[in-house]
Amino acid sequence: MPGGLLTDLYELNMAVSYLRRGMTGSATFSLSVRKLPKHRGFLVAAGLDDCLTFLQDFGFAQDDLDYLGSIGFDDRAIEDLASLRFDGSVWAVPEGTVVHAEEPILEVTAPIAVAQLVETVLLNRITLHTTLASKAARYVLAAEGRDLVDFAFRRTQGSDAAIAAARDSAIVGFVATSNVAAARRYGLQVAGTMAHSFIEAFPSEEEAFRAFAQDHPTRTTFLVDTYDSLNGVATAIAVARELGITDRVGIRLDSGNLDELARDARAILDEAGLPGARIFASGGLDEYEVAELVRAQAPVDAFGVGTQMGVSADAPYLDSVYKLVEYDGRPAMKLSTAKATAPGEKQIWRSGGDEGDVLGLRDERAPAFGWEPLLVEVMRDGTRLEAPDPILRMQHRFQEELVRVPTKAKRLSHPEHVEVERSPALTALTRQTQADALTRAGLTEPRSSD
Amino acid sequence: MPGGLLTDLYELNMAVSYLRRGMTGSATFSLSVRKLPKHRGFLVAAGLDDCLTFLQDFGFAQDDLDYLGSIGFDDRAIEDLASLRFDGSVWAVPEGTVVHAEEPILEVTAPIAVAQLVETVLLNRITLHTTLASKAARYVLAAEGRDLVDFAFRRTQGSDAAIAAARDSAIVGFVATSNVAAARRYGLQVAGTMAHSFIEAFPSEEEAFRAFAQDHPTRTTFLVDTYDSLNGVATAIAVARELGITDRVGIRLDSGNLDELARDARAILDEAGLPGARIFASGGLDEYEVAELVRAQAPVDAFGVGTQMGVSADAPYLDSVYKLVEYDGRPAMKLSTAKATAPGEKQIWRSGGDEGDVLGLRDERAPAFGWEPLLVEVMRDGTRLEAPDPILRMQHRFQEELVRVPTKAKRLSHPEHVEVERSPALTALTRQTQADALTRAGLTEPRSSD
Repeated sequence: MPGGLLTDLYELNMAVSYLRRGMTGSATFSLSVRKLPKHRGFLVAAGLDDCLTFLQDFGFAQDDLDYLGSIGFDDRAIEDLASLRFDGSVWAVPEGTVVHAEEPILEVTAPIAVAQLVETVLLNRITLHTTLASKAARYVLAAEGRDLVDFAFRRTQGSDAAIAAARDSAIVGFVATSNVAAARRYGLQVAGTMAHSFIEAFPSEEEAFRAFAQDHPTRTTFLVDTYDSLNGVATAIAVARELGITDRVGIRLDSGNLDELARDARAILDEAGLPGARIFASGGLDEYEVAELVRAQAPVDAFGVGTQMGVSADAPYLDSVYKLVEYDGRPAMKLSTAKATAPGEKQIWRSGGDEGDVLGLRDERAPAFGWEPLLVEVMRDGTRLEAPDPILRMQHRFQEELVRVPTKAKRLSHPEHVEVERSPALTALTRQTQADALTRAGLTEPRSSD
Repeated sequence: MPGGLLTDLYELNMAVSYLRRGMTGSATFSLSVRKLPKHRGFLVAAGLDDCLTFLQDFGFAQDDLDYLGSIGFDDRAIEDLASLRFDGSVWAVPEGTVVHAEEPILEVTAPIAVAQLVETVLLNRITLHTTLASKAARYVLAAEGRDLVDFAFRRTQGSDAAIAAARDSAIVGFVATSNVAAARRYGLQVAGTMAHSFIEAFPSEEEAFRAFAQDHPTRTTFLVDTYDSLNGVATAIAVARELGITDRVGIRLDSGNLDELARDARAILDEAGLPGARIFASGGLDEYEVAELVRAQAPVDAFGVGTQMGVSADAPYLDSVYKLVEYDGRPAMKLSTAKATAPGEKQIWRSGGDEGDVLGLRDERAPAFGWEPLLVEVMRDGTRLEAPDPILRMQHRFQEELVRVPTKAKRLSHPEHVEVERSPALTALTRQTQADALTRAGLTEPRSSD
């Protein structure tokens, strides 16, 4: 799929004008999140791999062009679009990196027509993945080392989103997913047991458990709450004994007071001589409920996490923007009283210590010895410079990053944001660019907002 | 894409057990929303077309089967799955129909293995589309007849979701979308002008407007707020006069106090002799802001609606479930103190008048003369019984439906829900099925909750 029509009409309008007028100057667009949602103290950058795949395949098929002809684009426009490819460069923060408000996650430099055309998909992909990875990271904080499994597929906003939820939750440390297609695509561990309907389809719970264990000797976690959870635990024990699988049985609780039920179930299992039997909890859990169960030391070994994570229910989008910061060698910015985007190609510098990040220009030096640049060149002349990161590498990156996030930014409720300082060079360029833009607009001070 | 791996692992576990054990009895699963989100007084059923397409193509490709072998399914399981197709029947509420909590949107009847396997995608699709159509309907209520255009693509949760947002908002009456791929796929009107970056790429706003109007003589809505909105309006007028297009110019406001700016812009346009120039407003509008602008009689002709609609920001998912209601000729239900799903194959009856709906069994008669059944058979033996509804037909259906929704359920804030009565036959079957299930579980009263 060359993907050229996966865009907003206005991108095509603009691209056609640029191409017709020979405006082939190089443009840099910077993609960042202006402001974090209320309960996010940091974000986890994600979605780059999808973006690079899209850019590599970008173009228009003949039937795309035919359609554009049918909605009013003339022959010249279509001829100009026909040969368009993405042959630019991309600098980006690697996936799994912690980022803050106003820090560019990705910067694209290409002839302005094509750099503009790809805006819609780049924003869509980075917003989706960063939203989901950042939400899933909250469960990781809440779970304090207990296992987390993605169960979100059935209620995500489409299949793309389901695959993204599985992948992005893996990046931040979820151990498995129920989503078979995602597991295959990304080589993830896949997990799943049975639904209540399975129990109901058999004459009794005991018969259902027995059949399941016989048919799936390696998957012997029994869903015990179809009729009565603690009776279900007893039935699971009886079947495990009968089949000689007491060493590898587990139970899943999907309803009721999970804290109480987990303690009672644990006691019953221990008393029956099954101290190794794992207890799995699920059922619409948000990160606060997970944190509460962990804080109360409920004997839950693993949490199945669905909808709340899969749609990032409390913050289902980010205030992400894709702003022109340089065109044809000239820095650019939209005038605004409130939220000026900084001009120029950027770099983010992160210290090894307690200092916050510094946002500067790409060609500046490090603020001091030992500071690391976060943005790296990942595509040049339309070609990826490296193979996609394996999930495991992104996981390690996130684990290392998370340790360095200040505690106050890791609180689940009302976390504090991390301040990002601007380098003197960036501040000076911002002032100069704003003054130039005012002059061009014939104004003495900015009057628009946003 | 046969789609067999677009599922949760547990569906495959269960299906494999059913197939191995010769449990080929027919099962009916009922898909409904248990409880509406806080600010939803009704839902707009949507997503059926996606479901039927999925069911028609359902199956496993050889590489799907190879993957299943690699994660532990044995040869017999793979052989059983290899030939699986969806050859069942579907009853559903047509898209664009208003539905309430606990009313089945879709019921699937098929051999239990395949009816179970398709759960994940059916839930995903109905939840996504119904969520988005129901959210978009709130904008339609708010706009009171003014035009609405979908601008959501850049921040929806993936491309599936963007295409769904364009389609579902069209079903409830949006007049156009910015999403070119969705417009092509569904034959929707496509809309779009220019971004701020376009203005910034030219030496001046005037030159940008002139170039745009020359290149796109049929798309002459100017984005006026890059530097200063009212200056921008004056520039738009000057360019329109110069090019002789004062009869078809429009402006778009994307920031600032839209009420005030729209009034000022209207006055300037009228004074300049352009009373026909349309004013378009956009910029992160939620339905309350649209309603407020309409209530204040701000002279806005059309609203561009993005993120808030495209992710259904205040309610990004629904409490949707897919419950076994009948298996092998026997009604089924999960025991629950709180939220028992009613057993048996259903029908929803709607009166032409003020009465609420009646939820009954599929083979019952209408409660009284003139009541209409909402669930219709749309697929039999795995084959669609009718071609997909054109968008226009769904639009008409929704318009007719909306008139019949009680005013109290159409309030944007804290709407009242519409009560759905259960027929005596359904109530009796529920009691009987519950008693039978208790007996099978060896209990005297339900103890699990859900």
